[in-house]
Amino acid sequence: MIPVDWKSLFEPAPASASVPGSGRGTAFRNIRKVRIEWSHCAPAGIVFYPRYFEIFDNSTNALFERALGLTFFQSLKTFKFAGYPLARTRSRFIRPTRFGDDVTVVSSITFGRASFSIEHRLIHDGEICVECSETRVWVVHDPTVPGRVESHPVPEAVRAKFRM
Amino acid sequence: MIPVDWKSLFEPAPASASVPGSGRGTAFRNIRKVRIEWSHCAPAGIVFYPRYFEIFDNSTNALFERALGLTFFQSLKTFKFAGYPLARTRSRFIRPTRFGDDVTVVSSITFGRASFSIEHRLIHDGEICVECSETRVWVVHDPTVPGRVESHPVPEAVRAKFRM
Amino acid sequence: MIPVDWKSLFEPAPASASVPGSGRGTAFRNIRKVRIEWSHCAPAGIVFYPRYFEIFDNSTNALFERALGLTFFQSLKTFKFAGYPLARTRSRFIRPTRFGDDVTVVSSITFGRASFSIEHRLIHDGEICVECSETRVWVVHDPTVPGRVESHPVPEAVRAKFRM
Amino acid sequence: MIPVDWKSLFEPAPASASVPGSGRGTAFRNIRKVRIEWSHCAPAGIVFYPRYFEIFDNSTNALFERALGLTFFQSLKTFKFAGYPLARTRSRFIRPTRFGDDVTVVSSITFGRASFSIEHRLIHDGEICVECSETRVWVVHDPTVPGRVESHPVPEAVRAKFRM
Repeated sequence: MIPVDWKSLFEPAPASASVPGSGRGTAFRNIRKVRIEWSHCAPAGIVFYPRYFEIFDNSTNALFERALGLTFFQSLKTFKFAGYPLARTRSRFIRPTRFGDDVTVVSSITFGRASFSIEHRLIHDGEICVECSETRVWVVHDPTVPGRVESHPVPEAVRAKFRM
Repeated sequence: MIPVDWKSLFEPAPASASVPGSGRGTAFRNIRKVRIEWSHCAPAGIVFYPRYFEIFDNSTNALFERALGLTFFQSLKTFKFAGYPLARTRSRFIRPTRFGDDVTVVSSITFGRASFSIEHRLIHDGEICVECSETRVWVVHDPTVPGRVESHPVPEAVRAKFRM
Repeated sequence: MIPVDWKSLFEPAPASASVPGSGRGTAFRNIRKVRIEWSHCAPAGIVFYPRYFEIFDNSTNALFERALGLTFFQSLKTFKFAGYPLARTRSRFIRPTRFGDDVTVVSSITFGRASFSIEHRLIHDGEICVECSETRVWVVHDPTVPGRVESHPVPEAVRAKFRM
Repeated sequence: MIPVDWKSLFEPAPASASVPGSGRGTAFRNIRKVRIEWSHCAPAGIVFYPRYFEIFDNSTNALFERALGLTFFQSLKTFKFAGYPLARTRSRFIRPTRFGDDVTVVSSITFGRASFSIEHRLIHDGEICVECSETRVWVVHDPTVPGRVESHPVPEAVRAKFRM
């Protein structure tokens, strides 16, 4: 019987991924406080992990809202897009969190060509508890087929907002 | 403006990971049908991705239940463990699914030393819509500190059940 | 076609509504099996009550699907309506249920003029664990204001399906 | 200490309970702001009603936390109880709310003998959108049967905190 060496359960992430923006100073960042609620927790007494993805999805929306200075619905109109669906996600669950914990989520964004990445870190008592990396695509309405969307490079007008 | 080439958004997974058990015949597999419900879906009209993790967590439990021939609570007693918390997860969202879709989740397991991996594939109309890989750890109660758990190699009696 | 008079929907239901079908044999009924999952449960080890409402909402959809012989989306087109939002709900939580319980939900419907009531009973081991009464309104798109809906009597073509 | 008489908890509440504090000025009240998130909403574009119950459950916990000046887990120890499960709830859904809405939840409590009632009002733009009434019971651990709980009058030390 051996004590949990949680850290060793994960391959070390590449430095650039685990420290978004470090050494480059370019990643736009948003920080929000989240109260862990009873509704987030499962019978083990700790957060049920799908709830973390709700928290991170909310954090992505908050990041955009702050950068663009618009609500999500205002953004849809202003930038004529149809959303930024998730294409891929990776997460590491390092330490559990519990009902009543006041945690901090630090979210930063990096733009690629047709997609962008968001790194979330959920922190409690000065320790990273969960790390999550999302790849999302910017999609617009297909003008020829109602209800169909297609990917599109993130407009420069949007990217510019994240540089300020 | 370019059509979504969802496939190209992902690095190709290594063959052994994307076809668990193939060529080896060792991965235990469970298949279950899931109805996509209104409660799974967000305003975009498609499944809100954190709900997929609820579906996959249920699928992991179903896999164990079928292999062990015991309910989860019976397993806790029989094998004197404290759960199998998630350490890491990776997912690819390839095609969306919608309310009313009857999907199939194929789940297979591979054991490591102190952890195990589960691959889930959510399939609709013959197409893989979501792929998810989980790494979980087997934990037992620490006999010296009440309420504390520690990782432990998966008992041979448990592994054996997945070979049959 | 009349505007939604939400207030009037909240008058106390007639006593007979709380015993659906009793003495009249007319209430259409649907029965479905539901597995209580880990994702339904809170740290107390029992179902977190908002999850029951997810189960009941699914049960209402299943009731309509079976009566109409159509998926929800097919129904929206066939009967040219915009949904049946909840106006009011009442629930009694009599006995808790737990992860692994296989429960039965019995749902029955009674039609009023501009609304209808659904009674759900969640049963485990022969005992009623939860009772829930819903009042819903049938809404259609307002032809003069895009995106606006208004209540409408449930079409006779729909009601007829519940009599068979 | 008396066994839970669940059935008796479901008698109709006195009329005054539905207008908390009216004419008596005694109901303890808590007010919190809640952001409606994407994760709360269903394909109709409005909040999926089971999510309101998550919001209200959080609001009940916040009410106790503020009155007692303790976290929930601290309260469990200090007042030697086992929780306050929901026995009954009634809700009216008057106006929908949407992703991005900043709503206010006003919660007030009234104590009965073996149970207590909480009234929640969810307000947006000065209008009540949802009203919810909960009846909860105070439960303690049964000293003779491990894992079993039974109802108990709310301790005077707890009630006193709500009078200040």
